[in-house]
Amino acid sequence: MKKDRSNASRREFIQQSALAGAGLALANPLQMFAQEKQQTPTAKNIKSKGYAAKDASGKLSPWEFERRPIGDNDILIEIKYASICHSDIHQMKGDWVPQQYPQVPGHEIAGIVTAIGKNVTKFKVGDKAGVGCMVDSCMQCESCKHGEEQFCDNGATVFTYGAADKTSPTGITQGGYSNNIVVKDHFAIHIPDHISLQEAAPLLCAGITTYSPLMKANFRRGDKVGVAGIGGLGHLAIKLAVAKGADVYAFTTSADKTKDILSFSAKEAVVVDDILKLKPYKGKLDYMISTIPVLFDVASYAAMVKRNGFFTQVGMPVGFQVAFSNIGLANSRVNFNASLIGGIPETQEVVHYCADNKILPNIQIIKADQINDAWGKILNKQARYRYVIDAATF
Amino acid sequence: MKKDRSNASRREFIQQSALAGAGLALANPLQMFAQEKQQTPTAKNIKSKGYAAKDASGKLSPWEFERRPIGDNDILIEIKYASICHSDIHQMKGDWVPQQYPQVPGHEIAGIVTAIGKNVTKFKVGDKAGVGCMVDSCMQCESCKHGEEQFCDNGATVFTYGAADKTSPTGITQGGYSNNIVVKDHFAIHIPDHISLQEAAPLLCAGITTYSPLMKANFRRGDKVGVAGIGGLGHLAIKLAVAKGADVYAFTTSADKTKDILSFSAKEAVVVDDILKLKPYKGKLDYMISTIPVLFDVASYAAMVKRNGFFTQVGMPVGFQVAFSNIGLANSRVNFNASLIGGIPETQEVVHYCADNKILPNIQIIKADQINDAWGKILNKQARYRYVIDAATF
Ligand SMILES: [Zn+2]
Ligand SMILES: [Zn+2]
Ligand SMILES: [Zn+2]
Ligand SMILES: [Zn+2]
Repeated sequence: MKKDRSNASRREFIQQSALAGAGLALANPLQMFAQEKQQTPTAKNIKSKGYAAKDASGKLSPWEFERRPIGDNDILIEIKYASICHSDIHQMKGDWVPQQYPQVPGHEIAGIVTAIGKNVTKFKVGDKAGVGCMVDSCMQCESCKHGEEQFCDNGATVFTYGAADKTSPTGITQGGYSNNIVVKDHFAIHIPDHISLQEAAPLLCAGITTYSPLMKANFRRGDKVGVAGIGGLGHLAIKLAVAKGADVYAFTTSADKTKDILSFSAKEAVVVDDILKLKPYKGKLDYMISTIPVLFDVASYAAMVKRNGFFTQVGMPVGFQVAFSNIGLANSRVNFNASLIGGIPETQEVVHYCADNKILPNIQIIKADQINDAWGKILNKQARYRYVIDAATF
Repeated sequence: MKKDRSNASRREFIQQSALAGAGLALANPLQMFAQEKQQTPTAKNIKSKGYAAKDASGKLSPWEFERRPIGDNDILIEIKYASICHSDIHQMKGDWVPQQYPQVPGHEIAGIVTAIGKNVTKFKVGDKAGVGCMVDSCMQCESCKHGEEQFCDNGATVFTYGAADKTSPTGITQGGYSNNIVVKDHFAIHIPDHISLQEAAPLLCAGITTYSPLMKANFRRGDKVGVAGIGGLGHLAIKLAVAKGADVYAFTTSADKTKDILSFSAKEAVVVDDILKLKPYKGKLDYMISTIPVLFDVASYAAMVKRNGFFTQVGMPVGFQVAFSNIGLANSRVNFNASLIGGIPETQEVVHYCADNKILPNIQIIKADQINDAWGKILNKQARYRYVIDAATF
């Protein structure tokens, strides 16, 4: 047996394994798989302006930059709204992997199509369109062909911001905190008329991230479902689980969210000011999803699920790190899994599902110059529940 | 969002959660649930001698002590062999939780019944009997009634050594590195004649710990099963998975185990001197079990399992801590679970199964005064594969 690694090296170990790991088709900002684009030689770059991180300080400021010309399979979207995801903050601060700057975050994007490439049939000018967490992949592997582009077998998934991108004048993908975006049509999502653009935007990451595991989870009408961490993702998870017929038990550390939680039709709101507050629920839940974005007591939360049940983690903690007591998990015999967004067809599905079933995020519209303030509030758990930037203010 | 906890406090956090955790029916050495025993007032304590840890140094030395009198439901076993489990070392060194000393380790115990209490019908004098990881539980809750005493709903599982025990003259349970043991008949296991006592002993922890998840795992004849960590548990896991019909892929860091691994009928022995050695197996295995008792790259190992498959961890690392990249696990979509020994009926089952199918541990018999040397070899990965102490040498 090797000696227990030091805590410092453990952290390094997790990060290395996340970067290098044999099995990990990681969201690598320096990946080697950026796709070649066919460009018309005369095509011109698209001017864009938005808010960018210039360093790892976690502060954004105005920035003018260029996007690639509209390729034959591309559409140009005039962004109307972009909402703020906790991941934006993590990534700009380099909490996961070091970043290239300037970088424009944002992967919850909604707007209007204003131009299309000559091969595009999926959209026409004037359509409402959204962009979520991905903007490209190999399109040819089994995963891509089955609409799971986020798991591209060739590791060619290109994430919406900060990913190496030879077609981008800045060398990396630039996200949605800006007034427009050029994107391959396959990766854009139709937004139907019966949902507003500002309410559709958060569905493109927060929505799909919670919808995908909840829809796959094996629970039925009347079953008990736990949701831990009631922020941007968690509040949608409650609404989605309720829509699927579950009795939802919501676990939050913010006592002042109780009233909201009950208004989302949760059965109970449990304020976890002490881990022992979980005890009465031991073995009672049929399924549980956690959106907690920090290190937490996984084994004690998972123990609320019935034996042989499933517990899904969708929060991506600092350093991606999850840690727990193995004996705790052994005692509860609960299966732990993690889930990461969803494919393009499923992302289209969640937008229609939420529009049809009136499952809408609780949003607050802000101006561009309020972004830094909003980030601070998110870090202080004061968001209620998704900030949406009015792109007219860039 | 809270700031990432410091690494020092993370370790503390895991340990606290393991000790206090809402859901965790933990093997608590100071537990409050030790059962009252009915004792005949005139009954005499049983004299015993063995090897005990006197402190957390990880060194054992001879010790004479007393066990409780034989109660009405107890049997006295004259121990013939006790084998050495990695957990003995962890616990004696206080790697999991602080310990009371002197403490006699050992929970792979085989011997002959030499006396029985007046209510005992399960055994008669002269029977071969074994004791594994547990010696008592509430016997009345749903888990206990269903033969899963290790999950006793009342938290009353009493582990074989180091657990608070009012009936013990030393105040804690004392294990099998000794010449006898007094145990409630329900917690003793019959050892049939067609397996030797020295080969049966390791089945009582290493055997049941691997048998339980492997038999429950959903794989069939011809499926591919991975076994990571080829020591006392792992070598039995290979043999058991082969017996269930799997093509077994064994992953070890010890190149010199290759020949042994193939002799256990594994299909392949993979020497993981670099984590990239796992890459060719990505998504190929139908199921995987890990016995690795230290921090390791869980996400990369789990990524070898097919999507939506299962990965079981049975090693209990230092501090019980498991840590991994959540994004890594999300990318593989593998379900992680942990498993801890098995109930008494299942422990009886594994002994019969292994005796009937000639699934025997590879053992080396040692004398009591070689225990410290054997522990050193286990820590240096030199065990091949289970040391068995000849109790006649105490
Ligand atoms: Zn997001
Ligand atoms: Zn692909
Ligand atoms: Zn053991
Ligand atoms: Zn019980």
